Amino acid sequence: MKLIFLGTGAAVPTKKRAHASIALKINGEVLLFDCGENAQRQMMYTEVSPMKIKNIFISHLHGDHILGIPGLLQSMAFAGRKEEINIYGPVGTKEMMIHALSVGYHGINFKVNVYEINSKEAVKIIDNEKFEVYAFPVKHSVPSYAYVFKEKKKPRLDINKAKALGVKVGPDLKKLKDGIPVKLEDGRVIKPEEVLLPPKKGICVGYSGDTVPIEEFGKFLKELGCGVLIHEATYDNTLKENAIETMHSTVEDAIKIAEIAKVETLILTHISARYDDDISIYEKQIKEYNGDMDIIIAEDFMVYDLKKKTCSISILD
Amino acid sequence: MKLIFLGTGAAVPTKKRAHASIALKINGEVLLFDCGENAQRQMMYTEVSPMKIKNIFISHLHGDHILGIPGLLQSMAFAGRKEEINIYGPVGTKEMMIHALSVGYHGINFKVNVYEINSKEAVKIIDNEKFEVYAFPVKHSVPSYAYVFKEKKKPRLDINKAKALGVKVGPDLKKLKDGIPVKLEDGRVIKPEEVLLPPKKGICVGYSGDTVPIEEFGKFLKELGCGVLIHEATYDNTLKENAIETMHSTVEDAIKIAEIAKVETLILTHISARYDDDISIYEKQIKEYNGDMDIIIAEDFMVYDLKKKTCSISILD
Repeated sequence: MKLIFLGTGAAVPTKKRAHASIALKINGEVLLFDCGENAQRQMMYTEVSPMKIKNIFISHLHGDHILGIPGLLQSMAFAGRKEEINIYGPVGTKEMMIHALSVGYHGINFKVNVYEINSKEAVKIIDNEKFEVYAFPVKHSVPSYAYVFKEKKKPRLDINKAKALGVKVGPDLKKLKDGIPVKLEDGRVIKPEEVLLPPKKGICVGYSGDTVPIEEFGKFLKELGCGVLIHEATYDNTLKENAIETMHSTVEDAIKIAEIAKVETLILTHISARYDDDISIYEKQIKEYNGDMDIIIAEDFMVYDLKKKTCSISILD
Repeated sequence: MKLIFLGTGAAVPTKKRAHASIALKINGEVLLFDCGENAQRQMMYTEVSPMKIKNIFISHLHGDHILGIPGLLQSMAFAGRKEEINIYGPVGTKEMMIHALSVGYHGINFKVNVYEINSKEAVKIIDNEKFEVYAFPVKHSVPSYAYVFKEKKKPRLDINKAKALGVKVGPDLKKLKDGIPVKLEDGRVIKPEEVLLPPKKGICVGYSGDTVPIEEFGKFLKELGCGVLIHEATYDNTLKENAIETMHSTVEDAIKIAEIAKVETLILTHISARYDDDISIYEKQIKEYNGDMDIIIAEDFMVYDLKKKTCSISILD
């Protein structure tokens, strides 16, 4: 399971940073958080397959977070996509999508489901066998949501205990793992709860979108047991006034929320264009932090392996 | 005066080729022909300043030629642009622009003038002191126009003749050059036509947009005395059937029109994604051409100097 940073810039892109877009690659599926202009082509240099994107989560309706959608969908259509796609975003996303698909002619012949979120508190928007996704209202100049992905883990099977109870290796073990009771040859019935251990902790990642620092968001991540927070840090600490004025966060703000969340790793993104030539002030301000948390400044084409907890830059030729 | 190729791909972009967009840089001004997704960021790697774009010419309303417009305009606004911008395109461009500027929130506070072209023959759409631009209807699956840029040159001054007639070096020479008669100290009046030579030939460049080969377009370029034709060649000659079906051109088609036009240089662009790994079939088919014309396969970030007639790849760090 990997995070792939397709775009880590802010309102104005730079030579180094494309507009916001982050892919979460899980088994056979990609979740896309924001879709700034050119996300489709950024993907080509990574291991992200656009055809495997089933869900796109839009934090808010500013151009730098959405203008990659029409081109991405058009290229999916050219590639013969038939599978439907889900787009989640704040109120206004449906109207935005109508306009996005009306910019010129298009031949999109797969279903685009648009779900508008309208909630003043955390709300679960996806709940399937493999994972849950929550939207959490944050505060920006326009309605904006953070998103949290939480992997579901199945209970583990205590094989030794099962064997001791007389369950034979084979289909019966799978049944028990899947929560189905099993009848043994001697007539005894073994219930799953007799042989199941509590599941391992699943991976949990939060993404702030664009926002001022929201302590409640940190608390929510802590409740879920999140290990990784991707938080916007548009400005360095010396530009706190700019951050307040434009309703963004600084390095310090992001650290504060990550500390509340008690995550292991904080990844800073949505970096203002003004730092393109020199990001050293971020590095300095991060060094001043004395806690245990790992703090990473995202870069385009950065890959964060959520299992191995390693970070690398990977650009496919 | 230079052509800067920002995007040379076709419907689906590739790692090497962005969506269609070509900049023509003249003194203090940029003319942009098509504006595919990410044109704004492609520009950053070139000498094209988005703030110097006064006119955008849209060949047709397919996504790969227009989806860079909203992001480009938004970034211009962020950079404080106040100057108005002109957008030319086929009927439907006004509606397209309404949608393009309604994809999410935006704060564009300069005037965007949209001019729809609706003509069955060549029509002059710009005529100023420095240049003319013509739109020429071509044939694609949707209404589509080619564009032709033609530089205007002022008559040259025959300084020796002027001196022989008694005109002194100084403001009088400028007046004559500007077409204003001059009265000498001895009372004689020198008329401009007495000292002016015919102007040098201005630079003239045609851009086909997406189209099947149109002989009339070639003839029109010949009439104007065009030296350079940028023609789409989505397919190599072996895929003529695909070209017919999708209403595009092959290498051979483009050469045919360029031959009719009698241009010195033909630049092929809008290259299908299928040739991304291997363009050698284009090179082979170009070698089979026996004429005098230079034929160039465009690449992203290629710069063609229209005065020096030289070609290079230039990517700014």
